[in-house]
Amino acid sequence: MTTQWTTVFPGLPERQDEPVTHAARGSGGPTDGPLTDAELQLAARNHALPLEILREEVTPPGLHYLLIHFDIPAIDAGSWRLSVAGAVQRELSFSLEDLRARPAVTVPVTLECAGNGRSLLRPRPLSQPWVLEAVGTAGWTGTPLAPILREAGLHDDAVEFVFTGADRGIQGGREEDYARSLTLEDIERQGAFLAYAMNGAPLPPQHGFPVRLMVPGWYGMTSVKWLSSIEAVTRPFDGYQQAVAYRYLQDPQEQGTPVNRIRVRSLMVPPGIPDFFTRRRIVDSGTVRLQGRAWSGHGTVESVEMGVDGTWSPAELEPALGGHAWRGWSVSWDAEPGDHELRCRATDSTGAVQPLEPEWNLQGMGNNVAQRVEVTVRAPRV
Amino acid sequence: MTTQWTTVFPGLPERQDEPVTHAARGSGGPTDGPLTDAELQLAARNHALPLEILREEVTPPGLHYLLIHFDIPAIDAGSWRLSVAGAVQRELSFSLEDLRARPAVTVPVTLECAGNGRSLLRPRPLSQPWVLEAVGTAGWTGTPLAPILREAGLHDDAVEFVFTGADRGIQGGREEDYARSLTLEDIERQGAFLAYAMNGAPLPPQHGFPVRLMVPGWYGMTSVKWLSSIEAVTRPFDGYQQAVAYRYLQDPQEQGTPVNRIRVRSLMVPPGIPDFFTRRRIVDSGTVRLQGRAWSGHGTVESVEMGVDGTWSPAELEPALGGHAWRGWSVSWDAEPGDHELRCRATDSTGAVQPLEPEWNLQGMGNNVAQRVEVTVRAPRV
Repeated sequence: MTTQWTTVFPGLPERQDEPVTHAARGSGGPTDGPLTDAELQLAARNHALPLEILREEVTPPGLHYLLIHFDIPAIDAGSWRLSVAGAVQRELSFSLEDLRARPAVTVPVTLECAGNGRSLLRPRPLSQPWVLEAVGTAGWTGTPLAPILREAGLHDDAVEFVFTGADRGIQGGREEDYARSLTLEDIERQGAFLAYAMNGAPLPPQHGFPVRLMVPGWYGMTSVKWLSSIEAVTRPFDGYQQAVAYRYLQDPQEQGTPVNRIRVRSLMVPPGIPDFFTRRRIVDSGTVRLQGRAWSGHGTVESVEMGVDGTWSPAELEPALGGHAWRGWSVSWDAEPGDHELRCRATDSTGAVQPLEPEWNLQGMGNNVAQRVEVTVRAPRV
Repeated sequence: MTTQWTTVFPGLPERQDEPVTHAARGSGGPTDGPLTDAELQLAARNHALPLEILREEVTPPGLHYLLIHFDIPAIDAGSWRLSVAGAVQRELSFSLEDLRARPAVTVPVTLECAGNGRSLLRPRPLSQPWVLEAVGTAGWTGTPLAPILREAGLHDDAVEFVFTGADRGIQGGREEDYARSLTLEDIERQGAFLAYAMNGAPLPPQHGFPVRLMVPGWYGMTSVKWLSSIEAVTRPFDGYQQAVAYRYLQDPQEQGTPVNRIRVRSLMVPPGIPDFFTRRRIVDSGTVRLQGRAWSGHGTVESVEMGVDGTWSPAELEPALGGHAWRGWSVSWDAEPGDHELRCRATDSTGAVQPLEPEWNLQGMGNNVAQRVEVTVRAPRV
């Protein structure tokens, strides 16, 4: 294991065998209070997709969502190496050129942050305060992961792989390199790969340069950026990002269940023009073509409905960009003067449908509540 | 004039001859209250520079700050035209290829949002709630503007030029295309140009594709994105972004003074590693090389000082990247265990120095208060 545990703040607990509870997580519990300066600082650092850019099937560079837990590390691609070690028969080490020389795949992937929608929960969990735009779609190019792991060979007692990035910091009183784990079964089922290009160009620093893990269909925390090592381990990984963060739970004492695949969601391009401050939309009356995109990590998006003031009608679906990417949808709306509430909700092939009210959990994970857009329709100007 | 005025919200004033006062600006007055959902939505849309990226002299694509008042417009570069009209002797029209065929300059420019630092003011003006990171530096390529204006020829009664973008929305109850004006004197003094490339690549959509105005040394609101027209006008432009927003004033009834050149500022790369939620820094004791960048639109940066717990010492300055770009600085710090407050402040060639406390104004413009970074230094681990 390459991770280290250190207690750096007086008063925070030393690492113990019992799970770290929410009170030790550094941010305090969910609150009914106002937004805090710490949340604002996180909102300034991390980037969301401006909703109008949902019109683009592939998110333009620089507009894809970004959540960076610690700092963006400075990595020299020439000296960078990826090690594959632990409970394996042969330790391996790859340079960037080694990975580029292997068989390559390019996969369109919709990535979403598991905390997307968090700021809409009441009480509000204290972390990155996403509204609804922590998403993006890119074509990622890399080499499949499973063949590399087969080349290394697993010991019989290995249970999963730990993926560790070069970004390091403190969360909930623990100091760690950012790290997450996956079983070989999940790696194979999701078609995980080691990505070194995004939309045909080398990864930008903020997306994991030179190499990141890419796990299509799962929330973004799994696709570890700035990948430095892969380690086969003989007991389930208990790093902070695996065992404490990114779990669905209602109560701090629960272990909860792991966050993994992306829940079904749709978003619309807000129609018309915005008010700068409120982002309320102003639309001219008449026929308006509403459009958006929908995705799910659990299955195919089967339908999208548009709700206007509580009345739902089906949208037309476009083909998906790929098995793990969003699909476009559109629907016509006869916009009549007055104030209206637009909502959209998607249903996937498992029958899962977006809820109309947020489903609360302690850490604000997987809130796929149906989007709400407030619109003022104005009469034709004469 | 291509701008239109429309009152779209009941209760907001029709356009009148008297200046629009702050109460009509749509966001309400400054507040001592908590952060609002509207501010959070703006913070989610707009992007700041993660402070660790100050280590890069040229900001990597996708990490440069972004403030987008309305929506990012979708523009077809093939059919895009820039018109030069109004009080000119010859109306002109340029395609993107026309501009690319003209003499080209590439200029490294540090751009900063005039509202940078706004969220630190008390009471807090209600708008995009920047902390301190609304900055970035890129190499911008384009063609000088003044020769184009000379080719058009000015009528004797023309007083300035209005630059209008393709982004449209409502601010303070007024509906307008985003527009700003400049005099010919300012255009020539600042070396303004029409930029079609950023760091050697076509402009990304969010930075004004296909062409934006670039006014080195002035705050970013002047460098109009998605430029669609240039119009010579015979009386000073009174558009919202010129006459109401982007003015220094203390009282809603004042006209105030225009915001234009960038005030001197320095920022440091926060040392050590962060706590995810609080962004507090953890540093190992010993000698730490602190580094950052400093810039001013009023003159050359002449000195940078680092303050540790209130004691100031000079930093070493690197050459500036260019006459309108930041310069790097660094200083060694003997970090002793305990909690410390780091600050940096720059002085420019006009003698202007960053204040240690914010200087308040009604719209939160030009707050160049010295940055403050809280650090916990820990003893060597054994």
